[in-house]
Amino acid sequence: MAENETFIDRLRISVGLKTFHIKTVTEDDIKKFAEVSGDYNPVHMDEEFAKGTFFKGRIAHGILTLSFLSAAAAKLPGLPVLLSFSGKFLRPVRIGDTVRAEVEVTGMRKERGILTLKSACANQNGEVVMEGEVLVKIFEPPSC
Amino acid sequence: MAENETFIDRLRISVGLKTFHIKTVTEDDIKKFAEVSGDYNPVHMDEEFAKGTFFKGRIAHGILTLSFLSAAAAKLPGLPVLLSFSGKFLRPVRIGDTVRAEVEVTGMRKERGILTLKSACANQNGEVVMEGEVLVKIFEPPSC
Repeated sequence: MAENETFIDRLRISVGLKTFHIKTVTEDDIKKFAEVSGDYNPVHMDEEFAKGTFFKGRIAHGILTLSFLSAAAAKLPGLPVLLSFSGKFLRPVRIGDTVRAEVEVTGMRKERGILTLKSACANQNGEVVMEGEVLVKIFEPPSC
Repeated sequence: MAENETFIDRLRISVGLKTFHIKTVTEDDIKKFAEVSGDYNPVHMDEEFAKGTFFKGRIAHGILTLSFLSAAAAKLPGLPVLLSFSGKFLRPVRIGDTVRAEVEVTGMRKERGILTLKSACANQNGEVVMEGEVLVKIFEPPSC
């Protein structure tokens, strides 16, 4: 083991490492997300109401899309835990859309295990629906 | 109707307006959130694993806690839709914790219907578990 090697090095985490998560949004996802979050905004829940809005139909909760970034970050080595997030919701996501959420390590504070992740979600047409930055702390898992 | 009155005025939205959402986190919430997000990080799902970590037990997904802010924002008048979010996860939330998520209007661009919301989640002991800023756009609902 090289001197000054951190557990981030041992986990082979380096700038440029990417992980991703792909999910097709279903009506059941939106229903379950409403149940756990308590967010029953009719633009998500009620097609008739939503048709009369700017969006011309139901859209997924923004935080549901954001949760796919959490799933992508969870695939990083070690035990990643979110510290912060900042980002923008750029386009609506609808039932049937397939979202590809990707995080990429763009910065590291190795000694503290803290990573900066450039984060984006795109739909099946390659349009970015959300982008932002996530800070995660990588803890050493029990078996590490 | 006063001249220059916007629909934000008609909805009686002004700086200082607050809405909140209260939720006790259950094991079922975490299970459903994992299903919809795809985030099966064992620190959320596996008590035995989580006991061996820094957290000494399971913690809720950060984005699950964030979703309660979405529920609080959904209680604003009109049709609120998230534009952006930035915030920090300050303390873990565990099964059985009761989270109070509150948003407060701190700024408005009335003509565009855009509100800045100071946002925070606290647990049953009054400890802030998350804080940040949300930008929402208030659309006119179909019946407005």
